[in-house]
Amino acid sequence: MATAVEALAMQRAIELAARGLGSTSPNPVVGCVILDADGETAGEGWHQRAGGPHAEVHALRAAGERARGGTAVVTLEPCNHTGRTGPCAQALIGAGVARVVYAVADPTPTATGGAATLRAAGIDVEGGLLADAAARGNEAWLTATPRQRPFVTWKYAATLDGRSAAADGTSRWITAAPARAEVHRLRAESDAVLVGSGTLRADDPQLAVRGIDGDITQPLRVVVDTEATITPDARVLDSAAPTLLAVAEDADTDHLKADVVRLPRAADGRGLDVLALLGALYQRDVRSVLLEGGPTLAGAFLAAGAVDKVIGYLAPALLGAGPAALADAGIPTIEQALRLDVTDLQPVGPDLRITAYPAHPSSSALRARPCESAEEN
Amino acid sequence: MATAVEALAMQRAIELAARGLGSTSPNPVVGCVILDADGETAGEGWHQRAGGPHAEVHALRAAGERARGGTAVVTLEPCNHTGRTGPCAQALIGAGVARVVYAVADPTPTATGGAATLRAAGIDVEGGLLADAAARGNEAWLTATPRQRPFVTWKYAATLDGRSAAADGTSRWITAAPARAEVHRLRAESDAVLVGSGTLRADDPQLAVRGIDGDITQPLRVVVDTEATITPDARVLDSAAPTLLAVAEDADTDHLKADVVRLPRAADGRGLDVLALLGALYQRDVRSVLLEGGPTLAGAFLAAGAVDKVIGYLAPALLGAGPAALADAGIPTIEQALRLDVTDLQPVGPDLRITAYPAHPSSSALRARPCESAEEN
Repeated sequence: MATAVEALAMQRAIELAARGLGSTSPNPVVGCVILDADGETAGEGWHQRAGGPHAEVHALRAAGERARGGTAVVTLEPCNHTGRTGPCAQALIGAGVARVVYAVADPTPTATGGAATLRAAGIDVEGGLLADAAARGNEAWLTATPRQRPFVTWKYAATLDGRSAAADGTSRWITAAPARAEVHRLRAESDAVLVGSGTLRADDPQLAVRGIDGDITQPLRVVVDTEATITPDARVLDSAAPTLLAVAEDADTDHLKADVVRLPRAADGRGLDVLALLGALYQRDVRSVLLEGGPTLAGAFLAAGAVDKVIGYLAPALLGAGPAALADAGIPTIEQALRLDVTDLQPVGPDLRITAYPAHPSSSALRARPCESAEEN
Repeated sequence: MATAVEALAMQRAIELAARGLGSTSPNPVVGCVILDADGETAGEGWHQRAGGPHAEVHALRAAGERARGGTAVVTLEPCNHTGRTGPCAQALIGAGVARVVYAVADPTPTATGGAATLRAAGIDVEGGLLADAAARGNEAWLTATPRQRPFVTWKYAATLDGRSAAADGTSRWITAAPARAEVHRLRAESDAVLVGSGTLRADDPQLAVRGIDGDITQPLRVVVDTEATITPDARVLDSAAPTLLAVAEDADTDHLKADVVRLPRAADGRGLDVLALLGALYQRDVRSVLLEGGPTLAGAFLAAGAVDKVIGYLAPALLGAGPAALADAGIPTIEQALRLDVTDLQPVGPDLRITAYPAHPSSSALRARPCESAEEN
């Protein structure tokens, strides 16, 4: 049975883990707190980037000799394999910790078994502490690995009547500065940000992360541009971050120097096949995608059952005209509405942030629909 | 200076006043609590219907002799005139109360002066206690009288992407039972409910209040039916509640037996003149209107500046197609978006209720202005 001190340490470890979001893929985010034999915090660490030391190693280094006889509190079962770094289970044994408390078991075939190794070394091991919260903090990695496709968060901003722009196409600014700042944080925590060519033409967005303090990893900017209509002066092609163009297999890209991935068209010929796109991104170590629009691309992802999380910023405003935040999701009648489970509701400046998850992802996965079409905006 | 006991009594009086919503027009809603000389509640009352006793009279009757030397706590300044009932100021003097605490001063020329009359009789009088809350409870009456038009609340239900129905027109049910029950409460608290002929054709709503316990007054059902296209078998013409058809001056109504008001067409020829309609309703003692749709009628009201309050029920669902909750509000560009001040945000079953008021033009102009460079996106 974990103590209250260990639960607080786990809460802290979950916070530490979140600092790695956006820079650890294809690895999970992990946080670790080392408590000394008196239950005082002796060291903290988190996994900062793939190829770098694991959270436990950082925390053990910080704790030094105080780890001996102490407790390691870690968000994920310590790994048992020797990858680019040594196995954490061995590091914990070597440091002489008496107890290891972890939240979520490692589901990876190559890394699992850490708990057993630790127990065999005489260490007291307990799993499952704050497992739900820790799993949510690692939701992209935990779901991407078994599904072999990235976790997709659809982010949108709209008025209370669901418009993402006014009748004349203007959309600066529907939401206020605090919500817009949050979007840069969401981008920084994602491996890739994704837009369709309609949004590209309408807004010419740069899609890079700006205004975030500290050491951030720019996400891969992905443009779904079936016919390769992007022009070389598009801001998304600047040097602020890497960019990938997803185009149809037969698209003409001679005029472009950008990194290009060729993908099959959707079955109905409108845009690209969503799951093929996600598979290609997974191959490039992308585990989390922030889908930023526009409405038709979001509709195609929803129709394909490929939206795992929704973050909506609702501005306290009405427009009565202009493009809707979402289009063409393949839902003909009210009984097939995509129901969501709202998990969080927060004011962000004058706006409202709604965080939700599809209530029945399996049923929506049955609806096959294409990705991006030329008329999107 | 009011005491804590008086503040609690005022809170209670505001709750009592709300029981009269929907049945007191053209009078205000008023609640009253009589505290005896020891500060104990001796009597409660509220104004139940126009022509019936005022709140103070009900409360004094309940208090009997315990009112003598006590305090009357009342949401509105006691009236000074003899209408269908005697002046409340005289009733309070006659009952021997030592003190009167009220929230909001009576702005009506014929009824004002109650405080002065009470003071002249040697009673200690204090105004302004919980004035904001009491004014909000009486918002329809307080604004309708000076403007000579009813207070309009636009109620809508939509998905998170702003759809009020699916692509095939189905809308039962976007929101769950608790939100739908609340709408019947909103109707009961309104003097009139208003829909356009499009909603009539699409949904054939009855618009009567159902499922509310207690003694309720059915609101006037008003159908904006410019060309008088309603058929005699429409459910809104049943006997459950009175109905008024608002038609154009030149509309042919020979086929209808209903109560009809003829009004000028809107300047742009689309529908009726909104302010003329509201003026006609005011003449019929309607002080509060619940505008229930559809999107075009709501747009016309918003464009006319005739929406005073917005109550939105947002269902945690996405549709991606289907009619928007709001259309044609005459807003061409983002800087002219109608900004709202959200005053309340409540979960209602699985749905979310947003209560908001149009922001003052000055503040909305400030908030619509871009505050960062056009670079951002």
